Amino acid sequence: MARRIDSTPKKDGYRMPGEFEPQKQIWMLWPERPDNWRDGAKPAQKAYANVAKAISQFEPVTMCVSKEQYANCRNALPPEIRVVEIASNDAWIRDCGPTFLVNDKGGVRAVDWDFNAWGGLVDGLYFPWDMDQMVAQKVCEIEGIDTYRTPGFVLEGGSIHVDGEGTLITTEMCLLSEGRNPHMSKEEIEEKLKEYLNLEKIIWIKDGIDPDETNGHVDDVACFVRPGEVACIWTDDKDNYFYDACQAAYKTLSEATDAKGRKLKVHKLCMPKKNVTIKADFAIDTVEGTIPREDGDICIASYMNFLIVNGGVIVPQYGDENDKLAIEQIQAMFPERKVVGVDTWEIVYGGGNIHCITQQQCK
Amino acid sequence: MARRIDSTPKKDGYRMPGEFEPQKQIWMLWPERPDNWRDGAKPAQKAYANVAKAISQFEPVTMCVSKEQYANCRNALPPEIRVVEIASNDAWIRDCGPTFLVNDKGGVRAVDWDFNAWGGLVDGLYFPWDMDQMVAQKVCEIEGIDTYRTPGFVLEGGSIHVDGEGTLITTEMCLLSEGRNPHMSKEEIEEKLKEYLNLEKIIWIKDGIDPDETNGHVDDVACFVRPGEVACIWTDDKDNYFYDACQAAYKTLSEATDAKGRKLKVHKLCMPKKNVTIKADFAIDTVEGTIPREDGDICIASYMNFLIVNGGVIVPQYGDENDKLAIEQIQAMFPERKVVGVDTWEIVYGGGNIHCITQQQCK
Repeated sequence: MARRIDSTPKKDGYRMPGEFEPQKQIWMLWPERPDNWRDGAKPAQKAYANVAKAISQFEPVTMCVSKEQYANCRNALPPEIRVVEIASNDAWIRDCGPTFLVNDKGGVRAVDWDFNAWGGLVDGLYFPWDMDQMVAQKVCEIEGIDTYRTPGFVLEGGSIHVDGEGTLITTEMCLLSEGRNPHMSKEEIEEKLKEYLNLEKIIWIKDGIDPDETNGHVDDVACFVRPGEVACIWTDDKDNYFYDACQAAYKTLSEATDAKGRKLKVHKLCMPKKNVTIKADFAIDTVEGTIPREDGDICIASYMNFLIVNGGVIVPQYGDENDKLAIEQIQAMFPERKVVGVDTWEIVYGGGNIHCITQQQCK
Repeated sequence: MARRIDSTPKKDGYRMPGEFEPQKQIWMLWPERPDNWRDGAKPAQKAYANVAKAISQFEPVTMCVSKEQYANCRNALPPEIRVVEIASNDAWIRDCGPTFLVNDKGGVRAVDWDFNAWGGLVDGLYFPWDMDQMVAQKVCEIEGIDTYRTPGFVLEGGSIHVDGEGTLITTEMCLLSEGRNPHMSKEEIEEKLKEYLNLEKIIWIKDGIDPDETNGHVDDVACFVRPGEVACIWTDDKDNYFYDACQAAYKTLSEATDAKGRKLKVHKLCMPKKNVTIKADFAIDTVEGTIPREDGDICIASYMNFLIVNGGVIVPQYGDENDKLAIEQIQAMFPERKVVGVDTWEIVYGGGNIHCITQQQCK
């Protein structure tokens, strides 16, 4: 049974676990909108399928899909991947899906945040987002998981990472943006996060690397590897497009302490050597509000947008000279897990990557 | 995991259990189409909700609903009823849903029949039926249940009842109709049923009471109460619209023996005393192919369209003088179960009743 709970997770003893904690399954949403994904979304669908297959080596995957794409999606995936009908406005379940919580008695609940397509009517990426808003509830209904709602408080899963021991990292660029919760002060936002994710400390990185689309989601910048340890994007090439952002984020994390008072160990993760860019033959439907994409536009291609799964890590690959180095660096951070790369060139074109298109359900 | 199995249930040791055997849950589909349900389907939705609530006293219920009606449906039902998004062309999951099977090791599988809206292009009730056709698969995906497909063989769940011990009852009017499997002989249809439901014997009743809509589904005429015992509609009022059909069905069943060679005990179940009829203020959208409904048209109102659930029986009520008698007769057939009546006047207007709008998933 999936009830709406009027209390808060902190009051009820529920917390958001680290991504590295045990998971029951991974949720995904099938891409289809032709005004975001090139060539009728066919290349993106192939890439999503490859991500799903890579994850399913480690744990179950459920793919959510519209009624229109149900048959095509079911046929594109092996039978061990579950396919369920859930309509959406696009394909980013990290951001519109539920944030799952656990307590210390084996209970699982979730937070169903307000979602407004990364900025609503201020600088959101599309309108409407009514189907996205309902994804979290529908996922929890299928699983029989009780949810907390935060009416009037907008948050995307990609804008936060936690250590499961009271610490969250995020960016000011995103959480203090005009398009999300402009009626709340930084302190009020901190309080909300602490209450709904059961936290003691928020570490604020100033900027993400993606000011325009997600307003700088942290999941392209840094994540927890385990309690006390984070990974952070890094380059010492001053000509790299993301040089300043890397340096600043690294500095912030290197100087930070977590909720337990620990100084963080910061692992460096390389960026692609060359910019991943839009190609001239990229063709999408143009509709009212389409974000123009022009030949040579730089994509937000970060290796940080990996997903930790049970016994594995699924890592974006861009056909870049640094692909192999990224795998090696991530493998060194996670010696206990098998690191698997997936070519996600087509997904970064749509505005995100493996972490953005997945949502882990904890056990 | 939900696989397509290429074998047959009989070969694999799976059989369709009687409705009176243990169930895991009941599936339903939310009504909405305004060209079938009067007044924008609002009265029907209320009636469906009441049926769901009555069932949920006994066992879990999952309601399937389109994305358009998801929020309304969720709000209309108590939280213990699960709501999942599954598109359909109308709201008859008995007929378009899966037929669940069991083996003797606790395994559950299902048959996903071809569905063509009760007669396809010959005398079907609407076009298209593409979403209905996918309901069975989607249900089984959610539950992780393997399915058998019968491409080219059309069957609705409402056209069959089984005793779980090798016997099926059905009607010639439906299974031999021109709109279903005209390429197959009666013997070939028998063989198909025996193979996919694991049967030894088919008892053929000639006619149902509903020649126009379902072409005489047996679930308005007779059902198994337990192995060796059936219920059959009955009236000795020669002026009753359904007199001839009742007499004929009763005679057939009284003379029949089942797969085990037992002569059947036949319980009589009354019909409504007065005809349940369409009222002048019945207003539906008229579209291409709308079946006209005129003031005084007789509805196919049978008390037989009840549903057996764990510990209970959910019985249609029409505001008729015989409502109470029907409950008493059914209670006498099922002394071990609690019989609950639900006012389903609005559902019979749409063309069916409690049994037609439900599908039991066995354990």
